[in-house]
Amino acid sequence: MNVASSVLLTDLYQLTMLQGYYDTGMEDIAVFEFFVRRLRPGRGFLLAAGLEQSLEFLEQLRFTPEELDWLASTGRFSTGFLASLETLRFTGDVHAMPEGTVFFPNEPILRVTAPIPQAQLVETRLINLLHLQTLIASKAARSVLMAPDKLLVDFGLRRAHGAEAGLLAARASYLAGFSGTSTVLAGRQFGIPLYGTMAHSFIQAHDDEALAFVHFAHAQPDNVVLLIDTWDTEAATHKVVALAPKLARDGIRIKGVRIDSGDLAEHARRVRAILDAGGLGHVILFASGDLDEYVLRDMLAAGAPVDGFGVGTRLDTSSDLPYLDCAYKLQEYAGRARRKRSEGKATWPGRKQVYRRHDAEGRMVADVVTLETDPQPGEPLLVPVMRGGRRLAPSPDLAAVRRHAADNLARLPEPLRRLDAFDYPVEIAPALHELAAQVDRATLPSPSD
Amino acid sequence: MNVASSVLLTDLYQLTMLQGYYDTGMEDIAVFEFFVRRLRPGRGFLLAAGLEQSLEFLEQLRFTPEELDWLASTGRFSTGFLASLETLRFTGDVHAMPEGTVFFPNEPILRVTAPIPQAQLVETRLINLLHLQTLIASKAARSVLMAPDKLLVDFGLRRAHGAEAGLLAARASYLAGFSGTSTVLAGRQFGIPLYGTMAHSFIQAHDDEALAFVHFAHAQPDNVVLLIDTWDTEAATHKVVALAPKLARDGIRIKGVRIDSGDLAEHARRVRAILDAGGLGHVILFASGDLDEYVLRDMLAAGAPVDGFGVGTRLDTSSDLPYLDCAYKLQEYAGRARRKRSEGKATWPGRKQVYRRHDAEGRMVADVVTLETDPQPGEPLLVPVMRGGRRLAPSPDLAAVRRHAADNLARLPEPLRRLDAFDYPVEIAPALHELAAQVDRATLPSPSD
Repeated sequence: MNVASSVLLTDLYQLTMLQGYYDTGMEDIAVFEFFVRRLRPGRGFLLAAGLEQSLEFLEQLRFTPEELDWLASTGRFSTGFLASLETLRFTGDVHAMPEGTVFFPNEPILRVTAPIPQAQLVETRLINLLHLQTLIASKAARSVLMAPDKLLVDFGLRRAHGAEAGLLAARASYLAGFSGTSTVLAGRQFGIPLYGTMAHSFIQAHDDEALAFVHFAHAQPDNVVLLIDTWDTEAATHKVVALAPKLARDGIRIKGVRIDSGDLAEHARRVRAILDAGGLGHVILFASGDLDEYVLRDMLAAGAPVDGFGVGTRLDTSSDLPYLDCAYKLQEYAGRARRKRSEGKATWPGRKQVYRRHDAEGRMVADVVTLETDPQPGEPLLVPVMRGGRRLAPSPDLAAVRRHAADNLARLPEPLRRLDAFDYPVEIAPALHELAAQVDRATLPSPSD
Repeated sequence: MNVASSVLLTDLYQLTMLQGYYDTGMEDIAVFEFFVRRLRPGRGFLLAAGLEQSLEFLEQLRFTPEELDWLASTGRFSTGFLASLETLRFTGDVHAMPEGTVFFPNEPILRVTAPIPQAQLVETRLINLLHLQTLIASKAARSVLMAPDKLLVDFGLRRAHGAEAGLLAARASYLAGFSGTSTVLAGRQFGIPLYGTMAHSFIQAHDDEALAFVHFAHAQPDNVVLLIDTWDTEAATHKVVALAPKLARDGIRIKGVRIDSGDLAEHARRVRAILDAGGLGHVILFASGDLDEYVLRDMLAAGAPVDGFGVGTRLDTSSDLPYLDCAYKLQEYAGRARRKRSEGKATWPGRKQVYRRHDAEGRMVADVVTLETDPQPGEPLLVPVMRGGRRLAPSPDLAAVRRHAADNLARLPEPLRRLDAFDYPVEIAPALHELAAQVDRATLPSPSD
């Protein structure tokens, strides 16, 4: 079974609510928006990602006969309702910020406009897809900002949370500016450049570290990156220096070395010195092991001579912020704005647009969130991407998304580019305040309730 | 494409190392073990999970013609090597702790014994599968210990990291003792009990909260759990009381109410009082929203009258510990023990077994990790599960795994059952120390290197 494409990858309550909508004939147009409620201190911005997989999901949405049979076997649903699901497809409209757009809390990045059963049913998986990639892209962008001229490679598949998390983390980090990934399937599926070296086990399986280097070099003559920390990092570096002329006689050039443990900055300095003294100034130094944007910043600030970084677990799990406080909320039904007022989780009603103003240098200055019908100065960030269940245009390729992200990151206010604490100004427009008050007057409980 | 079953869901270096093993004819038997290196303070034990999916992966391991064509197109691999992959299958042995077994750092929970190309190739996905489910099962067990008599339901799919993370989090939390999940596909795929209520959007889409309750009750007459915090929790509770007799006339009994925001304990007390005063003592109170084991502990200690909890994001992302420091390391090759000594990441060599001693009441007292050839008092925890690529017995069903986990959790030392700080004693046996010293003598760099 292909888990990722099953419509049953949803919360039970979506289906029980759909039974309710079916029974009562509720099928008017609903408007839902996906947004992040707040960020924890220390995280200043987000990078939108996951739209492509979300649109694929909407296009492919359907119940298979086997799924409907199984749902019938649960005894939870009426025959008429299940029959209605046979022909259910997503026929709605989608507005969204393009992938790679910087955004902030309270700004919707995706809006679904569709008959309420459709718009409701897709909630769980849309959140699941947008949350994951936005989480990882936002995390990856921070390493990109800290090490803009370095080779950054996603190494996180093994500790990513399952298959899809690893695959999509490769995509999200690449679009945020990473150079590539070690995840082979991401190369095949998304055309992302692949990077890889060797594991400690390859060294350990040989009786002799130098022999392991020779074997690896001959097996991957175009990609000789040798792992030098299995036993003694500096001793291994001397072996690399000794081997280089012998390999050169076979036409093989050592491309790089990798260190994965200990004080990476300190080892990097010693290794660089040994390599340079041995005439291997061209050999690049690649570091991995418990890296994140803070370690990169500190290593580079300390002048560690590292050319590339393999960033793994802390990227793929976004370990300092393993989830976003995000939601997909009903903003309008049957032509009337809607709002929840649950404590700490109140929402702004209505169909919204986000406008962004830039200064003369093109840097972001401030955003305003308002109703779609209330134009503001600046650039509108949400654009129509799907109408009647069909895309309005082919999706941009991943390279274009990556350029858009780079352009957006370059426009961040300087404190955010340095990862400093900074509250980017996001104004909730008067039109939204007014609409919220109006909705409240219509739904506030009265003593007669 | 079914992402989760592709052999290309691996790190590039597995394939480049396999090219090296192919070129040099290295195909002797390798022994790899999966273990967790250390736990962060505050986390005292782990619960093994993910073996079932790992064995499925090993059984199904193969390269499709399309995958081999694509690998050829990358130009990274030799024709002979790619031809050898056509017939590659997993033909090795696996020893493992049964799923649901409590374990501790430095204790292997899975051992692979196979020709080195096979044992190496499977590293990435085995870690990916064992890490995810062990992470979530270990987190879930903590809520189970804190709320042993409560209904605990996994609500985390939307913010789980992708499709597989959500699906397998449902499985991992259920085997750890949760009552069920909201993830429909987990019901179909694993037979896990499904739970679900309604979303705020269902209330908001109606003009009238009470009408929404009535519609939902008629749509799901056997499962009437009403969400009461959309606008005003206590006002909504009074509506529930007023509705109950009307619904009863239609033969519908309200099963429960759910609160999802605000001070849950305080609302629970008020809601319980209103329900009881209204003759609805049988209606259960279900709470959700930012829950984890600490919140459950505090709410129950404060006497909050809650009968069930929907635990979502913090469970499915294991938010306080979003990854385990785990590894799959070569311990033996071609009959000789192996070890890495990388700083902070040194491993214990050889094929290992873990023995556990219990006291007279059946509580765990201490473990010892030693060589397989060095029997110790107590219960050996690793058992053979696969030989020659075939399972030795059908896997236990999930209910049996869940009982095994419950039995193990009941045997935890008291401080660990209370989530108190406690270092469970795990002894590294003298036999392992001796073997490590012996391996070091054979591989330590000498001045002549």
